[in-house]
Amino acid sequence: MEDRQELHPKVEKSFELIGKKWTGLIIYVLMSGPKRFSELSEAIPALSRRLLTERVKELEEHGIVIREVIADRPIRSEYSLTQKGIELGNILGPISKWAESWVHD
Amino acid sequence: MEDRQELHPKVEKSFELIGKKWTGLIIYVLMSGPKRFSELSEAIPALSRRLLTERVKELEEHGIVIREVIADRPIRSEYSLTQKGIELGNILGPISKWAESWVHD
Repeated sequence: MEDRQELHPKVEKSFELIGKKWTGLIIYVLMSGPKRFSELSEAIPALSRRLLTERVKELEEHGIVIREVIADRPIRSEYSLTQKGIELGNILGPISKWAESWVHD
Repeated sequence: MEDRQELHPKVEKSFELIGKKWTGLIIYVLMSGPKRFSELSEAIPALSRRLLTERVKELEEHGIVIREVIADRPIRSEYSLTQKGIELGNILGPISKWAESWVHD
């Protein structure tokens, strides 16, 4: 019981993070590999570029996403999942399956 | 790609549901078996009875929790997870583990 009580704030934080609109989907899209901002934006057309910027920044702050600058011509940046992000993404997969079976439109 | 786009609204709905403050924890507590309202309330002391009532009602509406009236003396009711709820609970377990490893207070 004590352990569970102690875990509460961490678990609650995680649920809140995952529950923020679009966060789960951004992680889900990045599971298929690094993406440029424009590719992320195209993958989730209903999400505005302004809100995508905000969500990606939050995910960077949580250490789930990293932005890497690629020394290419022209210089460009790519977003990818950290180890923490990949492990979270692996958990979100089963949620998609659950949604498919149980959630009705 | 088409399939993923179609799945989006369902997945998004699920993430939003799980992300609502306390929802995940209520499901987590019910994974250990049916609980009376007072037991649920005691298990999550930081959650007010008013908000617990609201969240449990939402979970009932989503078919995740059912309230059963027990023909005992005095008559009492118990909350338990449906099959849909149990399957969701099974997914939430790994999120707790992830939180324990990666989320800092």
